Amino acid sequence: MDLLSIKDPSFLKGMSNKELEVLSQEIRQFLIEKLSVTGGHIGPNLGVVELTIALHKCFDSPKDKLIWDVGHQSYVHKILTGRACDFDTLRQFKGLCGFPKRVESEHDVWETGHSSTSLSAAMGMAIARDLKKEKSFVVPVIGDGALTGGMALEALNHIGHEKKDMIVILNDNEMSIAPNVGALHNILGQLRTAGKYQWAKDELEGLLKKIPAVGGVLAATAERIKDSLKYLLVSGVFFEELGFTYLGPVDGHSFEDLFENFSYAKKTEGPVLLHVITKKGKGYTPAERDTKGTWHGTGPYKMDTGAFVKPDKAPPAWSSLVSETVRKLAREDKRIVAITPAMPVGSKLEGFANEFPDRMYDVGIAEQHAATVAAGLATQNMKPFLAIYSTFLQRAYDQVVHDICRQNLNVFIGIDRAGLVGADGETHQGVFDIAFLRHVPNIVLMMPKDENEGQHMVYTALQYDNGPIAMRFPRGNGLGVPMDEQFKNIPIGTWEVLKEGDDAAILTFGTTIPMAMEAADILEKQGISVKVVNARFIKPLDEKMLTNLLDKNIPLLTIEEAVLQGGFGSAVLEFAHDHGYYSHVIDRIGIPDQFIEHGDVGSLLEEIGMTTKEVVKRLTILARKKQQRA
Amino acid sequence: MDLLSIKDPSFLKGMSNKELEVLSQEIRQFLIEKLSVTGGHIGPNLGVVELTIALHKCFDSPKDKLIWDVGHQSYVHKILTGRACDFDTLRQFKGLCGFPKRVESEHDVWETGHSSTSLSAAMGMAIARDLKKEKSFVVPVIGDGALTGGMALEALNHIGHEKKDMIVILNDNEMSIAPNVGALHNILGQLRTAGKYQWAKDELEGLLKKIPAVGGVLAATAERIKDSLKYLLVSGVFFEELGFTYLGPVDGHSFEDLFENFSYAKKTEGPVLLHVITKKGKGYTPAERDTKGTWHGTGPYKMDTGAFVKPDKAPPAWSSLVSETVRKLAREDKRIVAITPAMPVGSKLEGFANEFPDRMYDVGIAEQHAATVAAGLATQNMKPFLAIYSTFLQRAYDQVVHDICRQNLNVFIGIDRAGLVGADGETHQGVFDIAFLRHVPNIVLMMPKDENEGQHMVYTALQYDNGPIAMRFPRGNGLGVPMDEQFKNIPIGTWEVLKEGDDAAILTFGTTIPMAMEAADILEKQGISVKVVNARFIKPLDEKMLTNLLDKNIPLLTIEEAVLQGGFGSAVLEFAHDHGYYSHVIDRIGIPDQFIEHGDVGSLLEEIGMTTKEVVKRLTILARKKQQRA
Repeated sequence: MDLLSIKDPSFLKGMSNKELEVLSQEIRQFLIEKLSVTGGHIGPNLGVVELTIALHKCFDSPKDKLIWDVGHQSYVHKILTGRACDFDTLRQFKGLCGFPKRVESEHDVWETGHSSTSLSAAMGMAIARDLKKEKSFVVPVIGDGALTGGMALEALNHIGHEKKDMIVILNDNEMSIAPNVGALHNILGQLRTAGKYQWAKDELEGLLKKIPAVGGVLAATAERIKDSLKYLLVSGVFFEELGFTYLGPVDGHSFEDLFENFSYAKKTEGPVLLHVITKKGKGYTPAERDTKGTWHGTGPYKMDTGAFVKPDKAPPAWSSLVSETVRKLAREDKRIVAITPAMPVGSKLEGFANEFPDRMYDVGIAEQHAATVAAGLATQNMKPFLAIYSTFLQRAYDQVVHDICRQNLNVFIGIDRAGLVGADGETHQGVFDIAFLRHVPNIVLMMPKDENEGQHMVYTALQYDNGPIAMRFPRGNGLGVPMDEQFKNIPIGTWEVLKEGDDAAILTFGTTIPMAMEAADILEKQGISVKVVNARFIKPLDEKMLTNLLDKNIPLLTIEEAVLQGGFGSAVLEFAHDHGYYSHVIDRIGIPDQFIEHGDVGSLLEEIGMTTKEVVKRLTILARKKQQRA
Repeated sequence: MDLLSIKDPSFLKGMSNKELEVLSQEIRQFLIEKLSVTGGHIGPNLGVVELTIALHKCFDSPKDKLIWDVGHQSYVHKILTGRACDFDTLRQFKGLCGFPKRVESEHDVWETGHSSTSLSAAMGMAIARDLKKEKSFVVPVIGDGALTGGMALEALNHIGHEKKDMIVILNDNEMSIAPNVGALHNILGQLRTAGKYQWAKDELEGLLKKIPAVGGVLAATAERIKDSLKYLLVSGVFFEELGFTYLGPVDGHSFEDLFENFSYAKKTEGPVLLHVITKKGKGYTPAERDTKGTWHGTGPYKMDTGAFVKPDKAPPAWSSLVSETVRKLAREDKRIVAITPAMPVGSKLEGFANEFPDRMYDVGIAEQHAATVAAGLATQNMKPFLAIYSTFLQRAYDQVVHDICRQNLNVFIGIDRAGLVGADGETHQGVFDIAFLRHVPNIVLMMPKDENEGQHMVYTALQYDNGPIAMRFPRGNGLGVPMDEQFKNIPIGTWEVLKEGDDAAILTFGTTIPMAMEAADILEKQGISVKVVNARFIKPLDEKMLTNLLDKNIPLLTIEEAVLQGGFGSAVLEFAHDHGYYSHVIDRIGIPDQFIEHGDVGSLLEEIGMTTKEVVKRLTILARKKQQRA
């Protein structure tokens, strides 16, 4: 069928399983084709084609609430709810969002991006439904990875306790249960889904008797019996212990199985957990064969071969630069331990993990735990490197405050993807970290101007032993500058003058330095001399240099790729006023008080007026003010 | 023995169980006596007397790491590690801290206050130990309540997965398992702790056969068998599923049982969860009889009767005022639902819960989940009231940003205990909320000057339907002002002039208004006329009034009981500079860049220079500046 003609999912109701299978293939083909051009989260979406179709056939969205945890697996849902025609603009500026978005469709009842929120949201919706005495199904779809996030576990505990009607779809694409015990699961699954969900004692004992024979292995030792029993009851007891009716595991690519289980789940009172096994990348060989997660989200690729369309040779990625520097230092300093909350690939920690397997911990999607593990390590005189994206560090705000900074522990936080991240959009922009960290006592916060300074900052951070220290660095690649062979210690709280000038000064750091330099060069030609300062320490400020600038009454312009409220510019304002410089011209450029959507970073910066042109304009006014005063 | 003479726990090693029992009674008597004067967390500490003694006898602190989750149950530990002599100053300014504190003792290896951090810290310490190839035990002690916190669950999952050696003490004082199944637990406990930890199939089947007879009830229905099976395996399978060896439950008041289990746990490889049943308030009848949590933490009381020493008649507590106002409004508006993360008592929501049992959700210690449940409710056009302490809202920062504010949902956040809280100290001061909320787009943030304005603000918040709105209010009681009978809507972003004046103006809100008024009165007598503004909206600012003040070039002093970095004063600075008021005298008073310890609020404010005297001094300088300029 013509996917572009789909307006809403109602057409599914009359379709046979055969027809749905054809539709599945059409959707797969569509996704493989479209994403080869735009890039996007191909793996997760190919895995949920049948599941999404089945959900939209059996449930009645938007009356029934389909909630997509994390949300990057919502492409099929977007196609079925009339958005196929927008896929050419996927994740592009003003284009289709890569996550559920309420303004896009009434079928997007909940927006996601960060992991593990779906169950809590579902609980809120279920409470509302029951208070309003409405009849509808609330159906969160959550992956096995997202289930390890603390808030998902908090939610499971609460939902089970309250016994709210809800059908949780556990989209398990890891098949973590070994094949030889899968048989037992199938027995259990059949028992449970055949409509005779009752554990009569006889049946249970019958099952127990079968254990030793499973897989042809006689479970002779007590340990094995324990394990067998454990597997017998595995997810079942775990979730039932929490108060859920457990169904499954079922084949997430079989319409027959899915329909049977949905139908049973709809009839079951209280919370149901339906364990669905899917295969990431299903139906596209390169993605299906992927074991490393490379096809989770990709850029453009060649459809026939699956070869990625590589950009022209680029300098190394920031994540690599940082992780590889930590790795180098870890050879000398045995106290260095790396911690990542489920981002070993994104944070480019594979090399570190290979070289130091016992000094690298991937703790799963568990940012709070990650931060406090780092704190625990630091109490024992270790040097933890907490590698975390800016946007996900938000999850660990309290742990940074309460455990790391309050105890003034030597934790090095590498804040990856700081600043605008582009295609992932609103939920992933790393623009709040300065504002949520700067007010926390004891922390040092810095950002390098290029990868050479970056390596020295990593070195500095791991030498520093006076408390927590964090380095922001952007998504994407370095500038390609030459790298020093020897590491250097950068004195804490020191800025660097990149260009002299005395009509005005720009204080900025990281990604916005090139913009500042360019503006200063333009102005130089117009006879306005602008000093450019690499304000690489956001906290503490270089009070000596700042005082000097204030004393000379040079107008200041701060620029930061971060929210303005409470940011670096505010720190400069605070310092000036706290030290009696009441009559100083200080202007700020940064991210305004709004959430910034997806799109390429250039367009986004243009949209919010963070451009060289704007810098030139503002500086011209400032310099003129100075001339007027003089 | 003389508890004051204890220097360290080594004296315990040679004591018999009989002697330890005597010691337990002495410690109980000491605590009951001392806390009757100072107040403190009596219930939790009376519950862990034997457990703490046993831990210090069997383990070798500080080589072995005892980690107290939440930490208010650490008094016995403090006595045994040489701090009995400091109990007269418990929780007082410059006195003994109510939580573990690393500067107090080498035996305090980890500081707590917020819940659920102990397991993650323990994981960090265990990793460090193993990398250093040291031999020691890591022993976190966590309550059954704290175990519902997301990060504790994240940690359990990770610790089990990594199979790190660690002995987790689950201090279960709720006895949530019904007595008739407790017998089964005892059987299991014996089986497991007798050194023959093996689940031979025969033994298991033998146990299964016993189920129907337990409690004399024949478990006839399939449902019952399921439940029995569940209880049979209850905590065992749950924790074993996660990768722990489960021991228990054991009587936490029996030295014999504790020693036997500790000894077994020490010999067990990998993570052990030892389930210890204790009784809160044990040994002091009034506390032991408590079912509501009244004796969890108390003020002073009469030792013989347990009657609380009531302060002189005081106005109602802020928590009551807010919750009761919400309750009144809930009678008219059925969409109002209250949510609390385990603080129904502290947030005074009992009345609301009694009147609207189906519209009140205590989600447990689960702040992240609480915030997102509220968001989920709001998507369904409900009016959630999220009652949460300022310090605990830190845990839900990401959920406030990502789920509530980004989706611009109508959630009313009642931020209780905002500002300095006093005796609980560093970990509980509510001083960061302005700095971590002000930069989040879409949120309205306000604070009332008194309880009458407070009720109008609650009304305003629950009428408001343009996004999230939060009201801070302090710990303690209202001012005793007369209450209007009719609710009033307070226009968003409007301030109020409390006193006219034109030599200078104070912009402040909430608890610091009396200080401002007093200072203005003093200055008036000195011929300096100071305007006092109730800047009740922290975001958005009253831009009209502020512009007016800036236009008139009146020096401004902002005062806030919150951190200065990125706070309200910074908002005023930002506004001034963003609007070209570069030559304006603006000064700020607030909490400096340091963690504020425990003590009475008056002493703390004095310590950091937030006093009427300081306000007078600063205003005198400001007014003089203006006169100079004029």
